[in-house]
Amino acid sequence: MTLVTHRNAPGEPALGLARQVRTFIDEQVIPREPELAGDSASASACQDELATQARIAGLWGLFYPASHGGKLASLADYLWVAEQEGRSEYGPAIFGADATLDTHMLLRHGSQAIKRDFLAPLLMGEAVSSYGMSEPQSIGSIPATLTTSAEQVAGGWRLNGRKWFICRADCASFVTVVARTAEGELGGALSMILVPTDVAGFRIERQLDILGRFTGQCEIAFSDVVVPRDYLLGQAGRGLALMQERLGLGRVLRAAHWLGLAQRCFDLMCKRICSDRGEMARLTEKQLVRLRVFQSFQAIAGARALLHDAAHKFDARLDNNVEVNLAKVAASQALSTAVDHAIQIFGAEGLCDLSPLSGIYRTARTTHILDGTDDALISAVGRRLLDAYATGGLLDFSTPSVPAGAVPA
Amino acid sequence: MTLVTHRNAPGEPALGLARQVRTFIDEQVIPREPELAGDSASASACQDELATQARIAGLWGLFYPASHGGKLASLADYLWVAEQEGRSEYGPAIFGADATLDTHMLLRHGSQAIKRDFLAPLLMGEAVSSYGMSEPQSIGSIPATLTTSAEQVAGGWRLNGRKWFICRADCASFVTVVARTAEGELGGALSMILVPTDVAGFRIERQLDILGRFTGQCEIAFSDVVVPRDYLLGQAGRGLALMQERLGLGRVLRAAHWLGLAQRCFDLMCKRICSDRGEMARLTEKQLVRLRVFQSFQAIAGARALLHDAAHKFDARLDNNVEVNLAKVAASQALSTAVDHAIQIFGAEGLCDLSPLSGIYRTARTTHILDGTDDALISAVGRRLLDAYATGGLLDFSTPSVPAGAVPA
Amino acid sequence: MTLVTHRNAPGEPALGLARQVRTFIDEQVIPREPELAGDSASASACQDELATQARIAGLWGLFYPASHGGKLASLADYLWVAEQEGRSEYGPAIFGADATLDTHMLLRHGSQAIKRDFLAPLLMGEAVSSYGMSEPQSIGSIPATLTTSAEQVAGGWRLNGRKWFICRADCASFVTVVARTAEGELGGALSMILVPTDVAGFRIERQLDILGRFTGQCEIAFSDVVVPRDYLLGQAGRGLALMQERLGLGRVLRAAHWLGLAQRCFDLMCKRICSDRGEMARLTEKQLVRLRVFQSFQAIAGARALLHDAAHKFDARLDNNVEVNLAKVAASQALSTAVDHAIQIFGAEGLCDLSPLSGIYRTARTTHILDGTDDALISAVGRRLLDAYATGGLLDFSTPSVPAGAVPA
Amino acid sequence: MTLVTHRNAPGEPALGLARQVRTFIDEQVIPREPELAGDSASASACQDELATQARIAGLWGLFYPASHGGKLASLADYLWVAEQEGRSEYGPAIFGADATLDTHMLLRHGSQAIKRDFLAPLLMGEAVSSYGMSEPQSIGSIPATLTTSAEQVAGGWRLNGRKWFICRADCASFVTVVARTAEGELGGALSMILVPTDVAGFRIERQLDILGRFTGQCEIAFSDVVVPRDYLLGQAGRGLALMQERLGLGRVLRAAHWLGLAQRCFDLMCKRICSDRGEMARLTEKQLVRLRVFQSFQAIAGARALLHDAAHKFDARLDNNVEVNLAKVAASQALSTAVDHAIQIFGAEGLCDLSPLSGIYRTARTTHILDGTDDALISAVGRRLLDAYATGGLLDFSTPSVPAGAVPA
Repeated sequence: MTLVTHRNAPGEPALGLARQVRTFIDEQVIPREPELAGDSASASACQDELATQARIAGLWGLFYPASHGGKLASLADYLWVAEQEGRSEYGPAIFGADATLDTHMLLRHGSQAIKRDFLAPLLMGEAVSSYGMSEPQSIGSIPATLTTSAEQVAGGWRLNGRKWFICRADCASFVTVVARTAEGELGGALSMILVPTDVAGFRIERQLDILGRFTGQCEIAFSDVVVPRDYLLGQAGRGLALMQERLGLGRVLRAAHWLGLAQRCFDLMCKRICSDRGEMARLTEKQLVRLRVFQSFQAIAGARALLHDAAHKFDARLDNNVEVNLAKVAASQALSTAVDHAIQIFGAEGLCDLSPLSGIYRTARTTHILDGTDDALISAVGRRLLDAYATGGLLDFSTPSVPAGAVPA
Repeated sequence: MTLVTHRNAPGEPALGLARQVRTFIDEQVIPREPELAGDSASASACQDELATQARIAGLWGLFYPASHGGKLASLADYLWVAEQEGRSEYGPAIFGADATLDTHMLLRHGSQAIKRDFLAPLLMGEAVSSYGMSEPQSIGSIPATLTTSAEQVAGGWRLNGRKWFICRADCASFVTVVARTAEGELGGALSMILVPTDVAGFRIERQLDILGRFTGQCEIAFSDVVVPRDYLLGQAGRGLALMQERLGLGRVLRAAHWLGLAQRCFDLMCKRICSDRGEMARLTEKQLVRLRVFQSFQAIAGARALLHDAAHKFDARLDNNVEVNLAKVAASQALSTAVDHAIQIFGAEGLCDLSPLSGIYRTARTTHILDGTDDALISAVGRRLLDAYATGGLLDFSTPSVPAGAVPA
Repeated sequence: MTLVTHRNAPGEPALGLARQVRTFIDEQVIPREPELAGDSASASACQDELATQARIAGLWGLFYPASHGGKLASLADYLWVAEQEGRSEYGPAIFGADATLDTHMLLRHGSQAIKRDFLAPLLMGEAVSSYGMSEPQSIGSIPATLTTSAEQVAGGWRLNGRKWFICRADCASFVTVVARTAEGELGGALSMILVPTDVAGFRIERQLDILGRFTGQCEIAFSDVVVPRDYLLGQAGRGLALMQERLGLGRVLRAAHWLGLAQRCFDLMCKRICSDRGEMARLTEKQLVRLRVFQSFQAIAGARALLHDAAHKFDARLDNNVEVNLAKVAASQALSTAVDHAIQIFGAEGLCDLSPLSGIYRTARTTHILDGTDDALISAVGRRLLDAYATGGLLDFSTPSVPAGAVPA
Repeated sequence: MTLVTHRNAPGEPALGLARQVRTFIDEQVIPREPELAGDSASASACQDELATQARIAGLWGLFYPASHGGKLASLADYLWVAEQEGRSEYGPAIFGADATLDTHMLLRHGSQAIKRDFLAPLLMGEAVSSYGMSEPQSIGSIPATLTTSAEQVAGGWRLNGRKWFICRADCASFVTVVARTAEGELGGALSMILVPTDVAGFRIERQLDILGRFTGQCEIAFSDVVVPRDYLLGQAGRGLALMQERLGLGRVLRAAHWLGLAQRCFDLMCKRICSDRGEMARLTEKQLVRLRVFQSFQAIAGARALLHDAAHKFDARLDNNVEVNLAKVAASQALSTAVDHAIQIFGAEGLCDLSPLSGIYRTARTTHILDGTDDALISAVGRRLLDAYATGGLLDFSTPSVPAGAVPA
């Protein structure tokens, strides 16, 4: 078939990189997925080996800051690459894409000490970052319920508290911790502080298996952990603003990877339908099968469009809160739809751990909770859209916010 | 709120025209909708008056062929205008957009006689076109079941048969009739022939009210109707190909108008929620209300993206069958969702004929049947997407079909 | 096919009456539906004639109070009959079932004067009742926003105010008006007062067409209308409690009729699929067609079960608030699903006013608003179900509330 | 709250047993679920211990044939008990309910040898049964693609072939194998043969992990396995009919257990919403939370009703094919909805293996494939419902198939 159209095609660099990543995933990563899903020691070695190869191939950290090795100037261009990185659950780690968000945050807001001690090794793939926000006793969507504290002491900041569901906590070199540094108004109460995981008082409390597998999430604890004063990210008390900044870019990055996974599922499903075995059951002729193909494709195509909108506004430095949150929910729905339909076509084989669908199905379920639950985002987007009407205004679909050729650098 | 983004913004001519059409709809058309919905004589006069004003304002036939008055070179650009035309149910007729498809078909495939007798008055707004395909005893999705016949006789073509659910049949100057002109393979059996409605043997059998109102659809009959030989459109026997050509462009045009209606519903809903009366019921705070806002917006945004894909491929002369049909179904879903949610917010008032939602709700229902039922299109799209995989190929989401800057003229 | 099972079959009287009503609908009512849908004078005459025949056949007022002509002692038994009455949109009026709720309310709470002046003629089919609750400026779900007032004056009650979307207002003999009779707490502020429509100061302001047809709903006004003191229903100030009592029984009655309509749509759809014309399109073999059949049947069967639960609790004098509201929403969904699927199978013909589906589709849309919107009921049911858990309790699915053979009289 | 109603309450024995099972699950099983989910040796020991306690408590094999220890005469009565057994994923094994279907099949169709060698120990809980149908190269829904063969040899039957996704294969004492015993028409080609797992030539090829855990499913192989002639179940060549018989009862039994799990999820969700932590996030007030409660409850209540219909027809020996399949799909949907909503309320905690929801979520996904995929059942039910109309008949909702008090013995 002639290729799927996309009108806002990126320039050649992005397309070329997307093709290279796609080939790398197909030839290097997918054949080793069973190994990557295996017991943690050998899986970890395999992942390191592939990451090294990705670096050698020039495919590492493609959306890191342009000044620090990134090869793609715009987020909109990167989406084309990110989808390809995301076609394997292991892709984002192998291409260093898991750290993209942290490289931007540390470069933008980090002190010299932070850049030296954390950013530099992170860019080289020598450090692993993680982010500590959720707490066992807090409500995810209500930062006011966070209790981990950091107080200023002689040597810097002293942290106490617990965090859980911290991604990559099992292998992280450092954690960006959201901690309460002052009383009062939340806008001035929270701060972000970088904590190396080899510091005294830091402890991994337990590993948290998610839907039957351990993917690196842990509960961690800080007991009188002390870190230097200049491990503070940005200004003291401005943690809430930083959290929102993270979420804006972070949700776009994740959603792009999810859409890559969704495309993988779509491919697997369609290939199976068209296989000899599918033909034995005359699957191509079955309308309920075609309905699954239609619905999966529609969900993916719709979510991609929303995500591109969010990225273009990001690149143009416009408020893209509505677009980001809408795209995050839509990407999550698209992934869930695509993997569910694919499993249904494969039958019991699709549920079996021999199939990549088994892991993807479980990853898909987490996306409705991770980085903002569906309900929270639906409610937030609904409110924001209504705000446009609150003062007698309205959404004007006839006026694009980013006129062609007028995208700010 | 800053405006809704759209990355593939059209050039200034399209944007300017979209704004003009929007203003015209808001200031001239919407205030007179009750009149336009009234009894047919005065409604018809009102529509004629507004059409005259649209012509004077230079807003008539904006996507007619560029050589014949059209001001927009690409379908992708026109979408921006078409959505605005569609914000009122009466817009497409007032801006001459109802005839757009016929102007292209007649110009491309018409004989000199057809261009003189039908196309010329159509372009001037002096004729009304209609299209006669469905028949009382045929199956809509199976052209092989059509029985209306045209045989060559001394003076030209002699037609016999019945057609129904023919739009604008009540006021049409002519009908493009799909008739059987030969036996055998369908690809060589059907032809399109233009029939003036003042010819002997043509008869309007009955008006067909749709969900409680007459919007111009009729059942018509041809009894030994004779028309000149050169009223044949294209070649004899090639009717099936012409039907498919019509549907390709026709579905895009309609879907764009439907999305305009959907946006109108979205506006009405959000304004009501934010009105004093909405505040009395604290609607902005209600999550189920926000869910309706979210779902409507997501459906509209997703369908728009699919429609733009279809249009860009059309402009690039690429096969866009999948995109067109997907977009048609999605636009229909978006309109149904938006109007249903809007009515739910308005309560009984939304169902009442004093509200524009009452008519739009009924129009929305017809879109799932008109120009191809949902089921037929879902099945067709599913099959086409699977075709890409049938021979070992696949859809490659990483390669856009229309590289930037490479769109054929 | 052997008949659809139902485990809690009613006794022979109910089954026999259900069969008689079914035959009456099939033989007397359905053939005359085009007439009943016609212009109001002849439609009204036709309806009167059929009502007379229903009375003669002993099928009038079957669930009126047992002491006053009702032939069914339990609501659960009546459901079997009500579904059959509901198979035509015109059935409930023809069998006097539209007045069932009022007969119970007037008998239970009416003064001697009310019984004499309103109940007696109502039971005989000589009067038409209506109920005046909604107001142009009020919020449907917030009784506190009602403003129509009734003050005690020398001759009785003097009413002022407006009501709208009042069913049967075009032909009603009297209206049960919800009016504010005192300040303060809502539980003591509202009263129900019966107002004959031939009293001075009563006026029909305008007819309200709903989705393209007038079905009797009007806006009405009271200007210094005075009625006798004993036209008060129940006690002064207890209007809110009476409103809730009405809704409890009223929603069950309506939902049963809606399920009858849904079954009619299901029949029409399946017959069409299996017709010669359906076979021409091979509809029975199409999976998307079978999906529509499956979904319609599932929705109907599920809603029936919920409705029977509500009725059994009503008969046992147990709180059935959750069941009633759940069943109302489910019946509304079932009707919408069934009529939408049926139309899709019929194509354009199903939308055409020659088909009963055209009217039923529009009726179906009103059910999501009438007698409590979906959102309001979903929110109320959710809250009530959670109440069971609030104090450490839970819903115990293992203990039926109405042990077999232990239903209170 | 007063208890949830159910009109067709069973007699006291069933209710009493349901209560006992409920208490056993709450007090004995649920507290030990983490142990039961642990590594297989200790989990197995724990399960055996609880099964012993269940036997001692008189709660073992409650729906085994009445002549062999079963305490419930009707399937409809057993549903009340089965839901309670199903409230833990481990319940059906602990109460011997996993073997119910086999006890009926062996008693009804088994030779003396089968009854002695397999049924007797099964009834005592001394044997574990399994059922071998699916094959690696076959299509689940097309028995004609099965290739495992059994040929008559001197000593009895000689089997060769492979089966996979065989439940309890890891610990089964015997397998009922579907094998091809003749060529030609499928109705005479398949047979069921019992194979002890300690026979020569039987081999467990591999364990199949499903969505990250091993729950007993394996791929098994038969290489020249020979079993005695009288290990044939029923008649040679009648395997297809036996398969359908199994599915009829088997789907009802499983669906009842799934509804128990769904109720457990509903309880967990509602308790969490009403907990102190839920109150911190004001969950009871949130409409999107109430919507989840509403939808879960509606799905459960609807599926229960359909399941009861299926059971009543089973007890009355009426064809219940439509009801069984509809109920199976509905129960699967109800479980998926309930567990998905519960997880969304718990957030990341609900995904974590510390929560019972983690396992239930994965079990729920398998239900859409196990014992007939959704698509296959939807298509089958659609066809069967249409059959009722094919010959001019119809479904008559007004006539219950099982008049009260007239249930055949």
